[in-house]
Amino acid sequence: MTESRQEPVLASTSPRQPFVADDVLLLGPGPSTVSTRVREAMLQPLLGHLDPQFTALMDRVQDDVRLAFATAHPFTLVLPATGTGGMEATLSTTIEPGDRVVVAVSGYFGERMRDIATRVGGDVVEVRAEPGRAVEADAVIAAMRAGPTRVVAMVHAETSTGVLQDPLPIALVAREVGALVVLDCVTSLGGVAVELDAWGIDAAYSCSQKCLGAPPGLSPVSLSPRAERKLAARARHPSSFYFDPALLAAYWGPQRLYHHTAPVSTFYALAAALDEVAAEGLPARWARHREVAQALARGLEALGLVLLVPPQQRAPMLTTVLVPEETDDAAVRARLRQRHRIEVGGGLGALRGRVWRVGLMGHGARPAHVERLLVALGEELQRDPADALAAARLDG
Amino acid sequence: MTESRQEPVLASTSPRQPFVADDVLLLGPGPSTVSTRVREAMLQPLLGHLDPQFTALMDRVQDDVRLAFATAHPFTLVLPATGTGGMEATLSTTIEPGDRVVVAVSGYFGERMRDIATRVGGDVVEVRAEPGRAVEADAVIAAMRAGPTRVVAMVHAETSTGVLQDPLPIALVAREVGALVVLDCVTSLGGVAVELDAWGIDAAYSCSQKCLGAPPGLSPVSLSPRAERKLAARARHPSSFYFDPALLAAYWGPQRLYHHTAPVSTFYALAAALDEVAAEGLPARWARHREVAQALARGLEALGLVLLVPPQQRAPMLTTVLVPEETDDAAVRARLRQRHRIEVGGGLGALRGRVWRVGLMGHGARPAHVERLLVALGEELQRDPADALAAARLDG
Repeated sequence: MTESRQEPVLASTSPRQPFVADDVLLLGPGPSTVSTRVREAMLQPLLGHLDPQFTALMDRVQDDVRLAFATAHPFTLVLPATGTGGMEATLSTTIEPGDRVVVAVSGYFGERMRDIATRVGGDVVEVRAEPGRAVEADAVIAAMRAGPTRVVAMVHAETSTGVLQDPLPIALVAREVGALVVLDCVTSLGGVAVELDAWGIDAAYSCSQKCLGAPPGLSPVSLSPRAERKLAARARHPSSFYFDPALLAAYWGPQRLYHHTAPVSTFYALAAALDEVAAEGLPARWARHREVAQALARGLEALGLVLLVPPQQRAPMLTTVLVPEETDDAAVRARLRQRHRIEVGGGLGALRGRVWRVGLMGHGARPAHVERLLVALGEELQRDPADALAAARLDG
Repeated sequence: MTESRQEPVLASTSPRQPFVADDVLLLGPGPSTVSTRVREAMLQPLLGHLDPQFTALMDRVQDDVRLAFATAHPFTLVLPATGTGGMEATLSTTIEPGDRVVVAVSGYFGERMRDIATRVGGDVVEVRAEPGRAVEADAVIAAMRAGPTRVVAMVHAETSTGVLQDPLPIALVAREVGALVVLDCVTSLGGVAVELDAWGIDAAYSCSQKCLGAPPGLSPVSLSPRAERKLAARARHPSSFYFDPALLAAYWGPQRLYHHTAPVSTFYALAAALDEVAAEGLPARWARHREVAQALARGLEALGLVLLVPPQQRAPMLTTVLVPEETDDAAVRARLRQRHRIEVGGGLGALRGRVWRVGLMGHGARPAHVERLLVALGEELQRDPADALAAARLDG
């Protein structure tokens, strides 16, 4: 083995300063601020990814994820990837090359579904929403009936616009025409009701870092038996080994066949976050997200700001507010970050520069955070926050 | 939105016991035991994945990863995935459907490269090693010359056997015949010299949880300008969005275009681990791995055990030892885990039940760990460890 080396080599001549993260209140589109207990879980010593204590923890996480998704699907597990990995895994699993795929697009993440569905060989029909609105269910249904649709895909809570899409009417027709239903629950899971089995969802995915309240790096996914049967009958394997459902199931099943090295520390954090979800109870958690979002909306409007989405279509964990005329989007966000230690998201895709995205997710969805943001925004926009604070006050 | 729910719901009626991980000394094939400082880094509050402080940390990690790989490749970054994700990303990027691909296989991970190369459409020629030996460079070279080879792929340190493969003679011929060279550095990086540029490697990947000393969940990768040019000239995009190099580069480049939500906490840990690598210095770290591995080998042989790999082909961070005749492999490993709080790996693939895999990686590669293992193994095999401890003693 050659041991000669060229300079430079990774070797410090002087001690480095360790990285120290600012303590920022994360009110963007995710990651969201997590509890101290969740972070402390990662202090624990690592276990091996096949250790019996760790695989028992995987079982516990799997049970919790099933309950969170409200599903009995045997194929429910957690990918070593972000939510986009879950999107790719479910679309590449449910779509065979040449399949007619209807994608409901109301923003950036619907476009991403469309793009991935195209990459994996789908013959994609896109049904678009007006900006800041949900996709019309009737338009999606018409598109599904216009040809032999194999898959319909949509985003439950569109993170780029803050729109909530009701998947039920679309899923009902999908069942009738024999199409599989793929639902993006990246932003919704843990913050609003998600019911895979009651709604007839065949493939769903989420992430760890939004309403579940853990750090990023993991993606809960679930496949229905219908989706598993289609997979088993495929002429050709999905090309991905990393996201191969059969190999993933062998690691998550009783055989515990090695497939990848699970991100052990992040699992500790996710398990602790799911403990917090269970302690609060999902229905109480949904109510908290809803109430805090409504308080934020009242407060922002009292500041004279305009929300993008009409009330009945708002996703409770992500609020989009129009950047006021003659206001410098990036400068305000930079000052919120630097002077107030608050992160707020900018617009994505077509909404770049036009909206701010305020996430109140998981541990971060609290009245005190709403107040802190309203005060900071009032200061930066030179508007008195008194009325906004009064409007945002929660009863009780 | 439907809010009716079926029972059961994720809501505890009584407080749960938080998960408490045993403190296990990880001497398996990885994850390896990490330092307290690295775990403490994850206690820090989360930053947004586009936060200027976080993107500055990405730059710092990127610089360190370039130094660790000994490369100037502009395309050097860290994937939000495990080492297997790195394998899939590099093979799907360098291999176009129909390409003749020569894969050197000396164990389970070479087989995995072969399988993924096949899935992404490669016309794969496999060159196998004798069990427990490196692949003969001459055989690989002959296979490369036997047809118009576009890619040659091999594992630097084969984690299933503990064999170290010298990539240099193969890479030299690859350059001559115009093939791209893919090198798996999952187990080698940080524990033995890796020199992408000096060796002429076009695509390499590693992981965070072995000799770099961080938790699992991240995969450093590097592509040469040659590999980038081939990618740019492809007739068709790689099918993966998650592993698309152009999209990853846009997030890692000055534009910071959103592609995925980086696993922020794991990056904190990786950055702290790279600080430790820099403080020690790579050459000193390689020497430590080599010396501790040699001590382990002497100790195991003094216990009467037989190593699988001849000394000149041993990877210093992973030692494979034959399970003695009439010894119950699984029972011994279970007692090491339960009574001694030590994890040792079992055999993988063809070596299942036939070897134990002892990893001395990163923070875990220390003489005290060798001693603790020799005492425990002596007890479980009912052999006096005194001679083994004497043999394992390091000079100085």
